[in-house]
Amino acid sequence: MPDRVAVLAHGKFPDRSKTANGIVRYADYEVAAVLDRDRPGERVADHLPGVPDAPVVESFADVPGDVDALVIGIAPIGGGFDESWRPDVRAAIEAGCDVVSGLHYFLSDDAEFARLADEHGVDLRDVRRPRDGLTVARGRADEVSADVVLTVGTDCSVGKMTATMELVAAAREAGVDACAVPTGQTGIMVEGWGTPVDRVVSDFTAGAVEEMILEKGDDHDLLVVEGQGSVVHPAYSAVTCGILHGAMPDALVLCHAAGREAVHGYEDTPLPPVGEYVDLYESLAAPVHGTEVVAGALNTADVAGDDAARDAVGAFADGIDAPATDPVRFGAADLVEAVR
Amino acid sequence: MPDRVAVLAHGKFPDRSKTANGIVRYADYEVAAVLDRDRPGERVADHLPGVPDAPVVESFADVPGDVDALVIGIAPIGGGFDESWRPDVRAAIEAGCDVVSGLHYFLSDDAEFARLADEHGVDLRDVRRPRDGLTVARGRADEVSADVVLTVGTDCSVGKMTATMELVAAAREAGVDACAVPTGQTGIMVEGWGTPVDRVVSDFTAGAVEEMILEKGDDHDLLVVEGQGSVVHPAYSAVTCGILHGAMPDALVLCHAAGREAVHGYEDTPLPPVGEYVDLYESLAAPVHGTEVVAGALNTADVAGDDAARDAVGAFADGIDAPATDPVRFGAADLVEAVR
Repeated sequence: MPDRVAVLAHGKFPDRSKTANGIVRYADYEVAAVLDRDRPGERVADHLPGVPDAPVVESFADVPGDVDALVIGIAPIGGGFDESWRPDVRAAIEAGCDVVSGLHYFLSDDAEFARLADEHGVDLRDVRRPRDGLTVARGRADEVSADVVLTVGTDCSVGKMTATMELVAAAREAGVDACAVPTGQTGIMVEGWGTPVDRVVSDFTAGAVEEMILEKGDDHDLLVVEGQGSVVHPAYSAVTCGILHGAMPDALVLCHAAGREAVHGYEDTPLPPVGEYVDLYESLAAPVHGTEVVAGALNTADVAGDDAARDAVGAFADGIDAPATDPVRFGAADLVEAVR
Repeated sequence: MPDRVAVLAHGKFPDRSKTANGIVRYADYEVAAVLDRDRPGERVADHLPGVPDAPVVESFADVPGDVDALVIGIAPIGGGFDESWRPDVRAAIEAGCDVVSGLHYFLSDDAEFARLADEHGVDLRDVRRPRDGLTVARGRADEVSADVVLTVGTDCSVGKMTATMELVAAAREAGVDACAVPTGQTGIMVEGWGTPVDRVVSDFTAGAVEEMILEKGDDHDLLVVEGQGSVVHPAYSAVTCGILHGAMPDALVLCHAAGREAVHGYEDTPLPPVGEYVDLYESLAAPVHGTEVVAGALNTADVAGDDAARDAVGAFADGIDAPATDPVRFGAADLVEAVR
């Protein structure tokens, strides 16, 4: 894990920089600066309330003080490398920094970066490259001593990673030895370990999750597994289903975004009523490992005002017949209660 | 597609050579011989009734007449290459034959075979290597003009590939322009095309199936998609779920093996009642594309006598509340009726 990093988010901070924002909000390491050439001179705190502040700078050369790593905090559609970022990556390597990337384009396969990294003795960490040696699940995740909670969703981008991190933080505050199990690039960058489950061979989807749970499950009292996608997503349901069966969770937290009515990017596919998700996740999990939705996490970022947000949370709780909250707006203490 | 092949099944024919048996039974090309060094002098027809006969021989040198290809028809646990097969693969390449393999170990990555294949101008076809350029599903498989039927299962190895091939053959006999959509190694070897969906990047599971349906769906009246695994399999449910949502099938055929009570290889995980699978598959599919289980295919190979098999089929039909048959023992005409 680095101590102090710069986060590259050119042209996309803060509205289209989900990974950068997650790092700023949840990583234990210090963010020295966010790189966005469109906003030099601004501050992180101008845009993201309640997170550690940092300057927004134009390029790597403007990052104040020493950093250990440059983290690529955005992803263009398709996950390619934007050539306009090359000077910053080059400068970081030449300054002796590791570079951490979740792009589909692997920096360690880039001839210039590989050569420079070798010259300067730094690591290029492509977190989206699954490690070798993954295999099929053995149906053993229920053997660990920790309680296992999985965040599941009604869709992509509804706040599963956020709910995972908020639940772990709140559990720790309540004195529970909790550990996040990251399955996606942002979670992996925040926690410094994990497997990008959406990039593994499909036959090993459940196995990749099981392996992480077996690795950590006897060292903690509570594991919170970061879910992906949705079990009725036209493209990503395979990943969701593999995580559900591989994790063998004791409890589920259903995540939803207030106002979301259709699958993001598949607008002619309406979301089923939230209560239907409860039945689907529970009935699909049951033959492998019985579990239930014990709480809901509603993302109310697009709801104006706490009163309206509270109403939305109440309606969501009624729909899923379980307690609910917005863990960012109202805190995650209720989630901790529900999963214990 | 080859015209005439030899099929390697050393030490495993016929009881542990699922791929070899599928090729002998369903491929349009001729099988000149099965290689099994434990049974030289025997005949395929001694073991597999109702299929085109061929001799069982000790090595590639004993194959009668010329063949186009050697097909690896067995897989050791783990999918490795058994070094005892090397002389036969070498002999085949030196005789100018292509070699077709579904092993996880890619023959085209083997230095000796790659060099020999180059020298002799033959192809090493690793059918388990997915092609490049796969991507996420767009939710468009329902746009094709063909009716799409998907075989789904209560478990692995219950007869989904067999039901697929029998249904396509029976549909053609009934005058329907039907096409199999192969998703696993045996189906791909039989049909000469297809994508090994269990080997693709998990995010592309549904997309790999959608792409095949878009490729073939306007050229035929009926597509029968070969399913994989089971939606409640501890290890493989991701693949099953991705196929279900990627294929957007109009109808499902539920496949089951008579007497199977627990997940194969996960004996402490009992199978749910067959009727529960109907609910699970239909409710999981519905939010993406509504479908229903219109028929069942019961594998009664382990049931002694047609009367007992007929009773087992009847009980299965009652359990799923749909017509059922054993397509191998009793023919697939009823399945054709059910899916039209």
